Amino acid sequence: MVFKLYGSPMSTCTARVKAVLEELNLKYELIPINFGTGEHKQPPHIHRNPFGQVPALEDGDLTLFESRAITRYLANNYHSSGAPDLLKKNDRKAGGVVNVWIEVESQQFNPAISPIFYQIFVAPRFGAAPDQNIIKDNVDKLAKILDVYEARLSKCKYLAGDFFSLADLHHIPYTYYLMATPHASLINSRPHVKAWWEDISSRTDCKKVTDDMQAAAASASK
Amino acid sequence: MVFKLYGSPMSTCTARVKAVLEELNLKYELIPINFGTGEHKQPPHIHRNPFGQVPALEDGDLTLFESRAITRYLANNYHSSGAPDLLKKNDRKAGGVVNVWIEVESQQFNPAISPIFYQIFVAPRFGAAPDQNIIKDNVDKLAKILDVYEARLSKCKYLAGDFFSLADLHHIPYTYYLMATPHASLINSRPHVKAWWEDISSRTDCKKVTDDMQAAAASASK
Ligand SMILES: N[C@@H](CCC(=O)N[C@@H](CS)C(=O)NCC(=O)O)C(=O)O
Ligand SMILES: N[C@@H](CCC(=O)N[C@@H](CS)C(=O)NCC(=O)O)C(=O)O
Repeated sequence: MVFKLYGSPMSTCTARVKAVLEELNLKYELIPINFGTGEHKQPPHIHRNPFGQVPALEDGDLTLFESRAITRYLANNYHSSGAPDLLKKNDRKAGGVVNVWIEVESQQFNPAISPIFYQIFVAPRFGAAPDQNIIKDNVDKLAKILDVYEARLSKCKYLAGDFFSLADLHHIPYTYYLMATPHASLINSRPHVKAWWEDISSRTDCKKVTDDMQAAAASASK
Repeated sequence: MVFKLYGSPMSTCTARVKAVLEELNLKYELIPINFGTGEHKQPPHIHRNPFGQVPALEDGDLTLFESRAITRYLANNYHSSGAPDLLKKNDRKAGGVVNVWIEVESQQFNPAISPIFYQIFVAPRFGAAPDQNIIKDNVDKLAKILDVYEARLSKCKYLAGDFFSLADLHHIPYTYYLMATPHASLINSRPHVKAWWEDISSRTDCKKVTDDMQAAAASASK
């Protein structure tokens, strides 16, 4: 059984899904979607994801989109064969807390970090200078959010408890890019957040994904 | 077993959780948090939700926050006693699709509709005039998103298929408020979206929640 992942190697949302596929030791084929030619906004890709975005996943005759729905689908259905249960499905309390921190990433962290990423890495590709006001507003927002993370991570090793979960994993792609900017200090100045990032970013699945992002970014900027 | 829901009757995020509690026929006590006195930013509430927001739920000694994590927790653990399985947990494909549309609400619909709500209903309470540029940008964004919904709902009765799910339910609070603005035309001009809204908003659980929101809004504006 080989999953088909449609996406782009540099894309943070594609990387989120790749990290789960790697973590669960699942076989997949990455089928690149070319943003340059607008392939994502046309058939057949628009039939995979009606919003014209990546990633999309095919599992036999089932097609799914939205990175966090795909990661949840994989963790829900394919966590046998010795891989960890990233959702703590069979533990009512721990599973509930995993879902809380999955939502924190989605509703608090992502809305603050994604505009910083966009201004620094994406806008210049379209010939626009990064908007420093947008960056500053969102760095301030992210700092407050990471204060909550610092307090949380001083009480447990990972966000949902003393176990690695999908909630931690979802943070990997954007944090990886943030660490290549001067705003890495947002992570490095908070000792528990820094230790948490060092831990999760040294996992094999994470290294595989971030190495691919780095290679893709390097070849794109040639 | 009585759940304790900390929130505010007018709050959309509190209403999202109430709708699930009603749908699943669960007993709960709503404990109001007073925004006027800043109760949400202080202990004890800040210990329930470190981001100082509502809602939060207590189930015995377990405290959860983030509305969509709470609804998922309730649907995951308390769907016995004849209530529908809002997540289609035991059906790999249907469950996967429910999660896709839960993410669409969270990642596409919510970021467009919440600023419209904020400008029209919240800003005036702080003495600010609604920012018409923000409203226009987000109405345009929401229109494109609802075009995708219209196509989807022409193929199935509800977002995830021919069954009501958590994905539909999550849309109730903001759509309810939108229908009280001139932008109700975003819904009414799309026949399948309109039929879907008429269907879900006439459900008993929804009526209970929206009647409460209306009563709270009426008493707040006295
Ligand atoms: N919420 C979506 C976001 C998807 C997304 O924004 N994908 C980007 C690449 S990371 C994309 O396709 N951008 C092109 C576009 O939006 O037109 C997810 O998590 O999958
Ligand atoms: N993503 C959160 C959002 C919570 C939220 O924004 N709650 C609002 C009321 S609907 C609130 O507490 N606002 C006060 C604040 O943010 O200071 C959720 O879904 O629970």
